[in-house]
Amino acid sequence: MKPSGNQQLWLGDANANSYRSLSGHLRLAPERRNNSTSPKLKVDFNQSTGVAVMHMQNPPVNSLSLGFLTEFCIAVEKLEMDKSCRGLILTSSQPKVFSAGLDIMDMYGKSPEHCAEFWRAVQEMWLKLYSSNMVTIAAINGSSPAGGCLMSLTCDYRIMADNPRYSIGLNETQLGIVAPFWFKDTMINTVGHRTTEMALELGLLYSSSDALKIGLVDQLVPEDQVLATATKTVTKWLAIPDHARQITKSMMRKPTIDKLTSNREADIQFFVNFITKDSIQKSLGMYLEMLKKRKS
Amino acid sequence: MKPSGNQQLWLGDANANSYRSLSGHLRLAPERRNNSTSPKLKVDFNQSTGVAVMHMQNPPVNSLSLGFLTEFCIAVEKLEMDKSCRGLILTSSQPKVFSAGLDIMDMYGKSPEHCAEFWRAVQEMWLKLYSSNMVTIAAINGSSPAGGCLMSLTCDYRIMADNPRYSIGLNETQLGIVAPFWFKDTMINTVGHRTTEMALELGLLYSSSDALKIGLVDQLVPEDQVLATATKTVTKWLAIPDHARQITKSMMRKPTIDKLTSNREADIQFFVNFITKDSIQKSLGMYLEMLKKRKS
Amino acid sequence: MKPSGNQQLWLGDANANSYRSLSGHLRLAPERRNNSTSPKLKVDFNQSTGVAVMHMQNPPVNSLSLGFLTEFCIAVEKLEMDKSCRGLILTSSQPKVFSAGLDIMDMYGKSPEHCAEFWRAVQEMWLKLYSSNMVTIAAINGSSPAGGCLMSLTCDYRIMADNPRYSIGLNETQLGIVAPFWFKDTMINTVGHRTTEMALELGLLYSSSDALKIGLVDQLVPEDQVLATATKTVTKWLAIPDHARQITKSMMRKPTIDKLTSNREADIQFFVNFITKDSIQKSLGMYLEMLKKRKS
Repeated sequence: MKPSGNQQLWLGDANANSYRSLSGHLRLAPERRNNSTSPKLKVDFNQSTGVAVMHMQNPPVNSLSLGFLTEFCIAVEKLEMDKSCRGLILTSSQPKVFSAGLDIMDMYGKSPEHCAEFWRAVQEMWLKLYSSNMVTIAAINGSSPAGGCLMSLTCDYRIMADNPRYSIGLNETQLGIVAPFWFKDTMINTVGHRTTEMALELGLLYSSSDALKIGLVDQLVPEDQVLATATKTVTKWLAIPDHARQITKSMMRKPTIDKLTSNREADIQFFVNFITKDSIQKSLGMYLEMLKKRKS
Repeated sequence: MKPSGNQQLWLGDANANSYRSLSGHLRLAPERRNNSTSPKLKVDFNQSTGVAVMHMQNPPVNSLSLGFLTEFCIAVEKLEMDKSCRGLILTSSQPKVFSAGLDIMDMYGKSPEHCAEFWRAVQEMWLKLYSSNMVTIAAINGSSPAGGCLMSLTCDYRIMADNPRYSIGLNETQLGIVAPFWFKDTMINTVGHRTTEMALELGLLYSSSDALKIGLVDQLVPEDQVLATATKTVTKWLAIPDHARQITKSMMRKPTIDKLTSNREADIQFFVNFITKDSIQKSLGMYLEMLKKRKS
Repeated sequence: MKPSGNQQLWLGDANANSYRSLSGHLRLAPERRNNSTSPKLKVDFNQSTGVAVMHMQNPPVNSLSLGFLTEFCIAVEKLEMDKSCRGLILTSSQPKVFSAGLDIMDMYGKSPEHCAEFWRAVQEMWLKLYSSNMVTIAAINGSSPAGGCLMSLTCDYRIMADNPRYSIGLNETQLGIVAPFWFKDTMINTVGHRTTEMALELGLLYSSSDALKIGLVDQLVPEDQVLATATKTVTKWLAIPDHARQITKSMMRKPTIDKLTSNREADIQFFVNFITKDSIQKSLGMYLEMLKKRKS
């Protein structure tokens, strides 16, 4: 997939240089972490195994902001283009949360142009992950609502911490917004039509054990073993010849991916029209007020 | 969906006037019930909750006759157009049966024109229910074969009486007839491809507990709690903002609905050609004989 | 489905005459079994029940070679055209194996023309079985990897011997090759999208009990009861009026069948290009070496 015009801007992102070289165990310099431009991702690439672990560190809850998504897509693309990187584990550095999903601040009170750019970045994240040639494993070590759930669903395998307080699901309707068709398609591909219908209409969040029951995640392990299990799992997947696995993965996912790539601009337009409506902006405003009150 | 030409006739139905006003708790006048033109439906609309309960009362087994379907579609359309009505519960006033399905008397020994009109009414019932903007709950308080099962499958949620003597399923092949593609599609959307394939080819009727196991119904409760549970359930669904739920529902069901709307006349023609065949008429005749013998 | 040009050649096969008459209990003459051209199938047709049992006897492991597939397709077509034959049970005469799948010797070191002819025969086997008007039951009395699993998946019902040493699955990727889209579609129709995705990407082989859990087979019985259970099952299916069952089966499977029939030549070309690649030939060679070593 060629980066579109808009993504040229991303390549100019202040943090982009951090990911230029991915040889050996790359760790971003710790002194950068507290900068205002501190990287939102820590990528550990183990060249001997060919597996990269991407730790999301966008405090407090790994919101998928435009900035984060930009950095994320660059990082994934660099790994994708590095022939020596064959596996990718996604996990969180933040306590109790994998990712809280799309950043509402990029949809609330913003210009149509900003909303369009944001949505294109969400699409890009999904396209890059769902079509990745790498083996992708979600090491879900915390709650994972909405966009966080979507990110998990794009992976080849999902391992979640066995903690009843962690939940996962596409709960958009609870906020008065709607998961677009490609979120829906990804969920149908994972848990089937009926479960998706009820889950999306009610905006259901599932506890980790319920998520396992419906197949929204593949495995539960104690929280301190999530990453180790992901590492073992990726090794198992990498035992399969890459070309056969990749052709098979593409065959399974191509129709779903093609639906978005051939409707990408219309999908952006639909999102922008929807999210900039007065009534939807009001809903988001009320939701933000509610979040503020809950904190105080 | 605009009513087609044929439906103009239905609007002239003798019972149509009964449903003109739907304000407050509407109950059809009891003195009408024993008329030869007594209404086949009792609609209780609770304006404070925004929920209508539709009791099917077409003795003895709520057969879906042309007359019943006509009345049913008018009633649903009126509720659909009433902005204050947001939820619909379907249930039966007849003992032991939710609905016995399509009325064979409208397919046996009838003219092609009558069969066509009947089939258009079956399509209309499905289209209205499957695309309803209301939250629809099937309160299945009795057996529900064939068309009765289809009606249940169109709803957002199915609650069945936990009674091993009640069964549900699309058992058309057992009668030598065939569930059309949109019955099939609705069942696939609910229980998946493989379960549907075996269920339709064998014309399987499932006990309530088996129906729960395969996902044909969502919940079993004691018979006397079916309606109360449906009322609680509709409240939960109505807590989701209407517009988000409705867009999501439409996104899930539109492809299936579009398949019928764009093939409606061909589907009618196929049904009429099939059902008026000598061999099929003979099968239906034998089935009716068998029913008569069973009664005596 | 009309036989294509290539199949004319098959009709000239040395064993073809053995299947010309299918009246009463047909058994192939035992003295032919040890010939170099001994039939690879034993067909027992019971005219009183209308059920044929096809025993695969292509030692040692019922590999689906071009020769076997040719004989198999002729036999199925003859049964299909015999109005008195309404049910077909597929089983194995070889110990411990139902079928080991496609014969690698027809893909290794062969001309593109041979590979194309071979692939057309694989397609033909799938098309004949998946679209059969007969009730088809797989009596899986041994392991059934790859093409053997595909053959099972085409049937209306799968009964497997309850033996933990027997496995079943589409394990192509483990050999560095890829199950084509119609293998994939058949598996999705049986066990759903997500299970298929993981099974195909990892080339998973399931024990009989795991196969039952995911729905890859429908029933497990003790090994000595597989055929008797298949016979009972086919009787149950034949109780449904043929025309209604056949129309329903066609409605369920036609879209999947049409996808191959309208892409048949392209699918052959794709297979030939893939399998004749140096890298793939090398993989197959290594796999054959490994098999040889394992034996000695």
